[in-house]
Amino acid sequence: MKKHNFSAGPSILPQEVLLKASESIMDYNNSGLSLIEISHRSKDFVDIMEKARALAIELLGLEGKGYKALFLQGGASNQFLMVAMNLLEKRAGYLNTGAWSTKAIKEAKMLDDIYEVASSANANFNYIPKGFDIPSDYDYFHCTSNNTIFGTQMKSFPKTDIPMVCDMSSDIFSRTIDYSQFDILYAGAQKNMGPAGTTLVVVKEDILGKVSRKIPSIMDYKKHIAAGSMFNTPPVFAVYTSMLTLEWLKGKGGIAGIEEENEKKASLMYSEIDLNPLFTGFAAKEDRSNMNATFNLTNENLKETFDTMLKEAGISAVNGHRSVGGYRASMYNALPLDSVKALVEVMSELESKA
Amino acid sequence: MKKHNFSAGPSILPQEVLLKASESIMDYNNSGLSLIEISHRSKDFVDIMEKARALAIELLGLEGKGYKALFLQGGASNQFLMVAMNLLEKRAGYLNTGAWSTKAIKEAKMLDDIYEVASSANANFNYIPKGFDIPSDYDYFHCTSNNTIFGTQMKSFPKTDIPMVCDMSSDIFSRTIDYSQFDILYAGAQKNMGPAGTTLVVVKEDILGKVSRKIPSIMDYKKHIAAGSMFNTPPVFAVYTSMLTLEWLKGKGGIAGIEEENEKKASLMYSEIDLNPLFTGFAAKEDRSNMNATFNLTNENLKETFDTMLKEAGISAVNGHRSVGGYRASMYNALPLDSVKALVEVMSELESKA
Ligand SMILES: Cc1ncc(COP(=O)(O)O)c(C=O)c1O
Ligand SMILES: Cc1ncc(COP(=O)(O)O)c(C=O)c1O
Ligand SMILES: [Mg+2]
Ligand SMILES: [Mg+2]
Ligand SMILES: [Mg+2]
Ligand SMILES: [Mg+2]
Repeated sequence: MKKHNFSAGPSILPQEVLLKASESIMDYNNSGLSLIEISHRSKDFVDIMEKARALAIELLGLEGKGYKALFLQGGASNQFLMVAMNLLEKRAGYLNTGAWSTKAIKEAKMLDDIYEVASSANANFNYIPKGFDIPSDYDYFHCTSNNTIFGTQMKSFPKTDIPMVCDMSSDIFSRTIDYSQFDILYAGAQKNMGPAGTTLVVVKEDILGKVSRKIPSIMDYKKHIAAGSMFNTPPVFAVYTSMLTLEWLKGKGGIAGIEEENEKKASLMYSEIDLNPLFTGFAAKEDRSNMNATFNLTNENLKETFDTMLKEAGISAVNGHRSVGGYRASMYNALPLDSVKALVEVMSELESKA
Repeated sequence: MKKHNFSAGPSILPQEVLLKASESIMDYNNSGLSLIEISHRSKDFVDIMEKARALAIELLGLEGKGYKALFLQGGASNQFLMVAMNLLEKRAGYLNTGAWSTKAIKEAKMLDDIYEVASSANANFNYIPKGFDIPSDYDYFHCTSNNTIFGTQMKSFPKTDIPMVCDMSSDIFSRTIDYSQFDILYAGAQKNMGPAGTTLVVVKEDILGKVSRKIPSIMDYKKHIAAGSMFNTPPVFAVYTSMLTLEWLKGKGGIAGIEEENEKKASLMYSEIDLNPLFTGFAAKEDRSNMNATFNLTNENLKETFDTMLKEAGISAVNGHRSVGGYRASMYNALPLDSVKALVEVMSELESKA
């Protein structure tokens, strides 16, 4: 039986994407060859890469605005370093909203001076700081749009004249915002886009080339752009599967289409958390993530019963991250509303039992 | 019809590996979940990663010798940088045997001083330099065991007391040599090991921690080792498929078993090149690669006829790299002897026609 998969990442992908991806391993496009045993310089794969890049730009509404999309290796964690390598000359400002922001700061600090413009570390990152200043002479400002572990999400972004960089690993392609307010955005594929193993980086080209450091080739956005995202052998399967997911998303009406579904899922989930006395939400209400809902039992003694009920209902991977505890329901683009319904049902069943 | 796939990389994988990999995308191990939508921290995936790491060490004969195996992202090209980041303090010696060595040198030079101990650039890399000196006060010596583009292969390695690093991207797991003579060896998966998207790095732990530079976390072998090759989300599918290929190799009698087959394939191929007057080999005979055979037509006018015959016989991807021209038959571990027989048949057919 197919499970209700609430995994925080790697996470659920559309069933039709899995099917096509699986078929491509045996024979790609009736070529007599597997997708994973053809040259990345073949027309078949170059077409896939170009389509994936174009779809990313199109879905984000960034066509004709000076952006390039790259599908790189190394995960979002490698972007923590690459961003600083490519943009950090003297000092940059980071908003610290969770474990991933903290790591991004740590990595960039290896290279130069980083200033935390604000942090919610004092409250175990259960809210998004607001009303902070971003000095206008900094090289760039970095933030994390959605905090996967803590279940908070930035509902708006600061206005600033310096380049804005955003780690969107866990909410890219999930909501209609003005993506052109960012100069670099990046996201590991393994939440809303595809399997682990590739990271989408969308770069506004005109912010590059301004630092004095020698940038190693493999770390240089300009070199990756010049090579059409094929500076070296790309992660073929992860790019192909991401391309399939982006096609699926386009078929759903793009980001606007999926946003509607995401809002339905999130409001169903949070109203159960709020109305059911056995559960309490972790994140500040106004900062709640539509992707990752974090919540706890009000009575820890019910844990075993609840966990058993979840298992029996085929609900998978709702355990919270160790730094928050409790539960986390990740409701990425590919998660059907029915899965949220199934989870909410178990929660209310627990209430009627208790 | 399944093609005879001579692709230089990404390249042919065993049919049984493709089948298992394809199935895992729909349902891993009857879990009700796809391999690519489960957490990399799940027991299922941690077991895969541990098995892949252990198999690599076992097959290379490095058990109990102080080595750790890592499955990283970024390709062999990222190792050009990581090796230097982790080992380069003052100066290192590189043997330049081809385009990939040249790139490794270029990348390491970004950080510090690199000295070419020898180079075959003067002869378009058609041979392996021998009898060069490696200064004993250098930080390390770097070489490329097999030159994918030019079809040359190092048959022996220099004796040196400084750490020896080897790019084995295109001949790892193909022949029985003493792997413990190397302190770091690395290889992109996409030839003898799996799909593009992961790179095997085998490190002798005691050579680490000796440079003064601050190493970014994502570039630090020690951090990757400490995290069991899960410093961040690993490329799940590429690691799983590599693990399957290593299992397949073990079933074939390991490296010794496959070496026998590789020698049969290579000697069949090279004897046709030598005996057939229509073809001539590119690489110096004593340095010929058992993995990539490079050869040219003696009469370019036959090209069209030959190419048509190849196509009709279902022979794929034998076109040479643009820097060498002619033809290249890549005969990696998973290529059946029958594919070489099919190619050789077409070559001798051309001779009887001409
Ligand atoms: C918001 C965010 N940033 C960064 C990362 C790190 O991604 P990766 O493991 O691909 O390096 C994650 C992983 O879950 C994440 O959720
Ligand atoms: C010997 C050798 N080294 C390095 C590379 C580069 O590998 P990647 O594209 O994974 O960076 C290749 C690619 O074919 C290769 O053959
Ligand atoms: Mg701006
Ligand atoms: Mg409640
Ligand atoms: Mg040695
Ligand atoms: Mg001949």
